[in-house]
Amino acid sequence: MKLATLRTANGGTTAALATGADSYLALPAADVGALLALPEWRQVVEKTAAAQEAHQQVIAAVDADVAPLLPRAGKVICCGLNYGDHIQEMGRELPEYPTLFAKYADTLVGAADAVEVHGSGRVDWEAELAVVVGSELYRADEDQARAAIAGYTVANDVSMRDWQSRTLQWFQGKAFDATTPVGPVMLTADEAGQHFDVRGYVNGQLVQQGNTSTLVFGPAQLLSYISQFTVLRPGDLVLTGTPGGVGMGMTPPRFLKDGDVLTTEIDGIGQLENQFRIHAPAAIPANA
Amino acid sequence: MKLATLRTANGGTTAALATGADSYLALPAADVGALLALPEWRQVVEKTAAAQEAHQQVIAAVDADVAPLLPRAGKVICCGLNYGDHIQEMGRELPEYPTLFAKYADTLVGAADAVEVHGSGRVDWEAELAVVVGSELYRADEDQARAAIAGYTVANDVSMRDWQSRTLQWFQGKAFDATTPVGPVMLTADEAGQHFDVRGYVNGQLVQQGNTSTLVFGPAQLLSYISQFTVLRPGDLVLTGTPGGVGMGMTPPRFLKDGDVLTTEIDGIGQLENQFRIHAPAAIPANA
Repeated sequence: MKLATLRTANGGTTAALATGADSYLALPAADVGALLALPEWRQVVEKTAAAQEAHQQVIAAVDADVAPLLPRAGKVICCGLNYGDHIQEMGRELPEYPTLFAKYADTLVGAADAVEVHGSGRVDWEAELAVVVGSELYRADEDQARAAIAGYTVANDVSMRDWQSRTLQWFQGKAFDATTPVGPVMLTADEAGQHFDVRGYVNGQLVQQGNTSTLVFGPAQLLSYISQFTVLRPGDLVLTGTPGGVGMGMTPPRFLKDGDVLTTEIDGIGQLENQFRIHAPAAIPANA
Repeated sequence: MKLATLRTANGGTTAALATGADSYLALPAADVGALLALPEWRQVVEKTAAAQEAHQQVIAAVDADVAPLLPRAGKVICCGLNYGDHIQEMGRELPEYPTLFAKYADTLVGAADAVEVHGSGRVDWEAELAVVVGSELYRADEDQARAAIAGYTVANDVSMRDWQSRTLQWFQGKAFDATTPVGPVMLTADEAGQHFDVRGYVNGQLVQQGNTSTLVFGPAQLLSYISQFTVLRPGDLVLTGTPGGVGMGMTPPRFLKDGDVLTTEIDGIGQLENQFRIHAPAAIPANA
């Protein structure tokens, strides 16, 4: 099944089951994270779907305003440098440990939302498969981690390269509010194949392409590794890294311009399509 | 005034006003973060204190089990490399921008709690002044940031140097659950002086000492800078960096041993005293 978080008319959100390309059934939880936190969430979905279908309470496409999939995710942990073919084509050695960094749920934005960036002139793209945690994990092995994957979604770890390169730590270039699109749906793990094709486009032109079969650290390995030091809970999100083709790697480097449309897609899950509004860098308080 | 978060008999927590070295008055909020999120929180404290004092509902020292000051902090953002005198004595140039990284509230632990570390053999200390955010800040200047500081507390950004140095990003060495002591109280900004003496001790031996007058980026500057890219909310925490004297900088390097007691203190605020239980590194899933 495919689950989404939709914005509702009253300014809130609801978890929803996708019943077709254009229709959803509302579920009794505020978002997909809250749904996954319910014990027996699958049965909740099935019962609600049966009851709702009988009464035809389908949310029509015209009302389906897709919110960030996990607007209240407690943890959004990202892996960098994780596509083996890209690392090897750059002449680097495969890493022994995953390079991890953290962001907050405030970075997330919906699959069709406009993205507004203030104060960066080097806005770059990173198309990624993201893994949604379905049950609590702490110091778990890979089998336990695999069993705890609720499903998969599409993300773009949009990065402000000017801010990212100001210091050794990437966080400030990765943590701009409402700049990381995620969604539109989570494909549940039971319906997912083993590997995914991940692609990114700028104004319709293909710029990134990779297959998750070349990940150095796969989803279960990443979740197990992270769980050695911090607990993962239902609704937490782990981004698995991006394949080659980011703008800063081009000659000359290419960054998003005001008005550009960034499309991120994974076959079998869905597509993000976000138009960017980029405002000239503001004066930044630095060390005088 | 000094505010704390105390554990209650029913397994929860309560915000509390420190009325002496050994006594507290319970406040109508689950923790200091929830208290700061109330509009007019100062009046809530004053009214509650007046009412409670009349009825002598004082929590005696014997019951005062100090929880992490902000157990549900939405953001815990840390600054590295921020003590100018230490940077200069190392022969480095002062940074133009603050080096920032993120952690989650799960890292926090109480002022007197035992700290248990699994899987690291290089547990190091970083005594720090931490700033508690009192009102929402987004793209704020330094004056607005200064006005939004609720108060100050003591933290130790305990770091697993083996994990920290596995990759370029420090996160995994800084994000072990329940290893960052913070508290015991927040001193409100109106009663705080301009600068603080920060000290760290291992088994009673002074190992770190610094004064926040030598910070490259002071509290208001840090909050303003962070708010350029992400919103800060009441109860968020910003750690301002550590002075010289960490274990990895010693010759030979020194790390905490099982049973060691780490003490962190800031004059006028209070003291953290945490005994460490350190378990031998477990086998870590790495890239095969």
